[in-house]
Amino acid sequence: MATDQHPDPAAALEPGATLGDIGEFALISALTQRFPQGEQVLIGPGDDAAVLRVRTGHVVVSTDLMVEGRHFRRDWASAADVGHRAAAQNISDINAMGGTATSLTIGIAAPVDLEAQWLLDFAQGFADECALVGASVVGGDLTRGDQVVVAVTVLGACTVAPVVRSGAGPGDVLAVAGRQGWAAGGLAVLGRGFRSPRVLVEAYRRPEPPYAAGPAAADAGATSMIDVSDGLLSEVAHLATASGVRIDVRSADLEVPEPLHAVAAALGGVDPVGFVLSGGDDHALLATFPADADLPEGWAVIGSVAEGEGVTVDGAVRTGDTGWTHF
Amino acid sequence: MATDQHPDPAAALEPGATLGDIGEFALISALTQRFPQGEQVLIGPGDDAAVLRVRTGHVVVSTDLMVEGRHFRRDWASAADVGHRAAAQNISDINAMGGTATSLTIGIAAPVDLEAQWLLDFAQGFADECALVGASVVGGDLTRGDQVVVAVTVLGACTVAPVVRSGAGPGDVLAVAGRQGWAAGGLAVLGRGFRSPRVLVEAYRRPEPPYAAGPAAADAGATSMIDVSDGLLSEVAHLATASGVRIDVRSADLEVPEPLHAVAAALGGVDPVGFVLSGGDDHALLATFPADADLPEGWAVIGSVAEGEGVTVDGAVRTGDTGWTHF
Repeated sequence: MATDQHPDPAAALEPGATLGDIGEFALISALTQRFPQGEQVLIGPGDDAAVLRVRTGHVVVSTDLMVEGRHFRRDWASAADVGHRAAAQNISDINAMGGTATSLTIGIAAPVDLEAQWLLDFAQGFADECALVGASVVGGDLTRGDQVVVAVTVLGACTVAPVVRSGAGPGDVLAVAGRQGWAAGGLAVLGRGFRSPRVLVEAYRRPEPPYAAGPAAADAGATSMIDVSDGLLSEVAHLATASGVRIDVRSADLEVPEPLHAVAAALGGVDPVGFVLSGGDDHALLATFPADADLPEGWAVIGSVAEGEGVTVDGAVRTGDTGWTHF
Repeated sequence: MATDQHPDPAAALEPGATLGDIGEFALISALTQRFPQGEQVLIGPGDDAAVLRVRTGHVVVSTDLMVEGRHFRRDWASAADVGHRAAAQNISDINAMGGTATSLTIGIAAPVDLEAQWLLDFAQGFADECALVGASVVGGDLTRGDQVVVAVTVLGACTVAPVVRSGAGPGDVLAVAGRQGWAAGGLAVLGRGFRSPRVLVEAYRRPEPPYAAGPAAADAGATSMIDVSDGLLSEVAHLATASGVRIDVRSADLEVPEPLHAVAAALGGVDPVGFVLSGGDDHALLATFPADADLPEGWAVIGSVAEGEGVTVDGAVRTGDTGWTHF
C-alpha cells in the first residue's frame, strides 16, 4: 500500500539497516517490487485484498507456518534459502492434490532489529521458487514479533479431479516421485556442526519438489496422493488410515543416494535407509496407482496396497520412524 | 488430518491440559470439529489442501497476522474474543472490496504450555464470527512458537466489480459505515487499568464490522473503499494517495458516541473527536460515492473529495493522528 510515498525505497536500504530503521510502508513497497504479477492477477498487492481470475470453477487452498528456531535457523540457511523453502513447502501441498499453484500470500512477523536485507533476500528466494510454477505473490502482511514467523497461503487449480488421501484400494501400487531422505541427511549433518556432503546440506536448505509429478499422477489415474513433509512412513500411514487399507513398503525398492551412505557411515554405521523411511522436508510425492496404470516419468514403485490397516516395511511393522509432530 | 485416530479428542481435554499434553493430531481434530463446512467446500480440512467451488470466475484474497502482546493480550480479552477479532479483521478486508467472505484458513503458532482450552475457545469465537457471513474455515496449520501468532487468510467473492482504493474523483462525497472510535476508546480504558465504560471495552475486544455495508456500497456505485484498521485519517490518506485527490473530513459530521465523551473527560479533557479521527480496530468502512448517489442504509457522509492531494479536517491539515505503523 501507499507505494507512491516511497518511489525508490530499496535505494534507502543502507547496509545493516533494520526493519525499525526502514519502516513498514517502505519495506512493504520494497518487498512488493520483488513479486511480478501474472496474468491471473486482476488486482495485485496494495489494496485491502487481491482479486484473482479463476477459470476452473474451483480453487485449491492450503496454508503453512514456518517458525524460526523450529523450521529453520538463520545460521543454517541463507534468507534466500528460507524463502525458497517457504514457497516450496506450500506449492508442494497443491502438487499433492494433483494441482498447480497460481497465487500465494505471505504473512511475516519479525523482530524490529532484523536486518531489512534478510527480508528482501527472503522475498527474492520466495519469488524465484514461485516462478518455477508461474505463481504470483499477490498479498501479504508484515508485523513485529519476538521471532521470525512466516505464514504462507497458496492457491491453485487442478485440470482433472483433485487426488485426495482416501482413494487407495487393495491391489494398488505405492509409488514415489522426487528425492527422499536427502534433506534429512543434510539436517543430520548440520545438526552435528558439519557442512558436507554439500549436496545433502543444499537439499535441506533448498528442496526441489517434483512439481510436474503431481499433475502427471492425477492425469495417470492416481488413486491417492500426499507429499512427504514429515517423514515417508508417517505419510504412508496417513494414506493407509484415510483409505482404510494396509500399505507395505519394500525397502529394497527405495533409492538410497550415495551421499547418504557416507553420512550413515560417519554417524557410526546407522542404516542409511532410515533417512529415506523417516526423513521429511524433501517434499517428495507419494501416490497409489491401479496396478495396471502406466506410471508417469519420475515415478517409481516402492510398495503395494492390501486389505487391512497400518503400514509395514517388507511385511513387518517397523517402529521408531514415526515422523515429526509439533507438540 | 488423521481424525479417525481420535474419535472424541475433546473428551480427552482435562482442565488445564496444555498443547504439549494433548498433542498435535488430537488438537487439530478437536479444532476441526468446531468448523462446519458450507456447500462451497468440495474438500475440507484433513487433506494436503482444501478445494472450494468458485462460481464467480474470480476469488478475492487477503491475509493478516495477529501477534500476542502486539495485537492482543490474553489478559485483556478472552480466547473467544481474540477468535472473533481475528476472523472479523480478515472478513472486513473482503468487505472493503465490496465482497463477501466465503472461506478462511488459520495458521497458529503457540507455546507448548498454552492451555489447550484457550485454542478451542479461540476456534469457537472464530467460527462464530465466520458464521455471521456464512464463511467456512477450510484448513489450517498448528505449530510451536515462542508467542501466540495467528495467521489468517480469507477468500471471498464480489457480485459486482471490486471497489479499489484508487477510484475516488473530485466532487465525490466521503462516507463512513459502522462504529468508529469505539475500539480506540476501549483500548485507552484498558491501557489505564479500567474495564468501563463496558460498551467501549467490548467494542475493542469484539468489533462488529458492518459486513452488509461493503457489498451495498459496491452496488450503489462506490468509487473507492477501504476499511479502518489503523485509524480513520490514515485510511482516508490511503484513499487520497491511491486516487490522486484531496479529501476533506468534516469533524461536525463525525458521530461521537456518548461513552467517548465520558472517557475523554476522565482522561483530563482531551477532545473525544480524536478517538474517532485516529482510532482503528472497529473495522468501519470508508468509501467515496458520486455526489448524486443514493447512499445505502448505514452510510453517512463525513466529507468531500476535491482536486489536489492529502487529507484535511475542516479544511486544515491536522497533525498527530497518523495511525498505527508496525515498525
